[in-house]
Amino acid sequence: MKRSVFFLSDRTGITAETLGHSLLTQFEGVEFQKTTLPFLDSIEKAHQAVKRINQAAADDGVKPLLFSTLLNTSMREIIDTSEGLLFDFFDVFISPLEMELGMRSAHAVGRSHGMGIYSDYKARIDAVNFALGSDDGSTLRDYPDAEVILIGVSRSGKTPTSLYLALQYGIRAANYPITEDDLEHPGLPKPLKSYHDRLFGLTIAPERLQQIRSERRPDSAYASLKQCRYEVRAAEAMFRAENIPFVDTSAVSIEEIATTLLHQTGLKRRLYG
Amino acid sequence: MKRSVFFLSDRTGITAETLGHSLLTQFEGVEFQKTTLPFLDSIEKAHQAVKRINQAAADDGVKPLLFSTLLNTSMREIIDTSEGLLFDFFDVFISPLEMELGMRSAHAVGRSHGMGIYSDYKARIDAVNFALGSDDGSTLRDYPDAEVILIGVSRSGKTPTSLYLALQYGIRAANYPITEDDLEHPGLPKPLKSYHDRLFGLTIAPERLQQIRSERRPDSAYASLKQCRYEVRAAEAMFRAENIPFVDTSAVSIEEIATTLLHQTGLKRRLYG
Repeated sequence: MKRSVFFLSDRTGITAETLGHSLLTQFEGVEFQKTTLPFLDSIEKAHQAVKRINQAAADDGVKPLLFSTLLNTSMREIIDTSEGLLFDFFDVFISPLEMELGMRSAHAVGRSHGMGIYSDYKARIDAVNFALGSDDGSTLRDYPDAEVILIGVSRSGKTPTSLYLALQYGIRAANYPITEDDLEHPGLPKPLKSYHDRLFGLTIAPERLQQIRSERRPDSAYASLKQCRYEVRAAEAMFRAENIPFVDTSAVSIEEIATTLLHQTGLKRRLYG
Repeated sequence: MKRSVFFLSDRTGITAETLGHSLLTQFEGVEFQKTTLPFLDSIEKAHQAVKRINQAAADDGVKPLLFSTLLNTSMREIIDTSEGLLFDFFDVFISPLEMELGMRSAHAVGRSHGMGIYSDYKARIDAVNFALGSDDGSTLRDYPDAEVILIGVSRSGKTPTSLYLALQYGIRAANYPITEDDLEHPGLPKPLKSYHDRLFGLTIAPERLQQIRSERRPDSAYASLKQCRYEVRAAEAMFRAENIPFVDTSAVSIEEIATTLLHQTGLKRRLYG
């Protein structure tokens, strides 16, 4: 079963994609052919979009699904003439919001993801630079400025998580890679002792760790399942003994790791939405 | 004017935040006090959420706005007893989708951001490692494997953009920092000549570039407005002369830079939603 899906937006299409994606994942066994048509900001582009939608309708023999965050009324009216089934996000929710807030909405384009606010940009860049600078524990002197210190064995997902926290939330995350040497001594590694409250652990299924490490260093002791099992078990034992919150990165996506971290640490994000 | 806002979700709350945020930005002059209540996966947590919502209602004297992507019916029924005004994203759209697709939805939690699919994880990690490895042009030998090569003067936003493309879309982006030396010679810098089709330019307002560079090297010639103006003008002239698509990173957010890049280059993302 195949179905064409279009995400329509005056701007980036990110909101339309998010909405549509979260709805479509609820339907199994349908192969959704997704196309984003962003920056629909002229009558001509809207007519071209209608053409593409109608072509898909003709090819598929069923109505394409249209998820729209179009704000411009003229654009919406043109899209409405197409053969697609329109799910109009703003249309549904803006009116009741206007009622409740007792005011008209701006109906202005590009507010959600479109603004280059300098303070937001700077928070992001600073956090990204922080994450890059303190990647893999090379600069322990960054720890005093870190809002969170991610700890885990090599290849447990610290770098992408710290970058995601920086880019998405403007949070300054440092890393500490747990070495075999650390695991052989009881208690926290020495450089971490003064930062207990900022530690957040990442663990991973040994099988996946083996897979990831093997791509980096095939057939090495480092990538052997035995070694991966030993390190993961010992690291988790440390997290438990030291009461460090941790999450298994093999079971969830980076988005979910980051949200869980915020939730469990109570860290406040610098960027919202 | 103040208004409390709650984002309610069985899982991360990312979808509820994105959708709510895009609606709220349409209302100016209201100070929205935002709280995310993620992982509402038990009756007890739902009752606690109702308490927090009712407390906000009592404090504010107006109804809190609730943006929910809750799928679990029991949770939704409990939230519905609160003093908040519920905007239920799934409730509104799932039924018409079920009708059109001729099937029941799974009503299953954690599909949108919750899955740790290995191929997605690997695409991200590979792209992040690629971006980190080829940051600031240190490894020109990565260019053959790059899907896009971001070019721009120092501090024009190449690194955060390449990381965003990697994390969000799994796209392998390399960087090339345009130097003064490059600008003094006509045409493309030599290392880029064979990759014309993969180039994407980043430019920036000279005033903002000055601000960013000044934080790095205060009172330097590098950070002077004169130098920034010269480099930006010369780089933009190169983009135009060589027909390289480019975007001004000072006017828009990283999300929008990335989306514009996808749109203009026709690059296909590896991750969707």
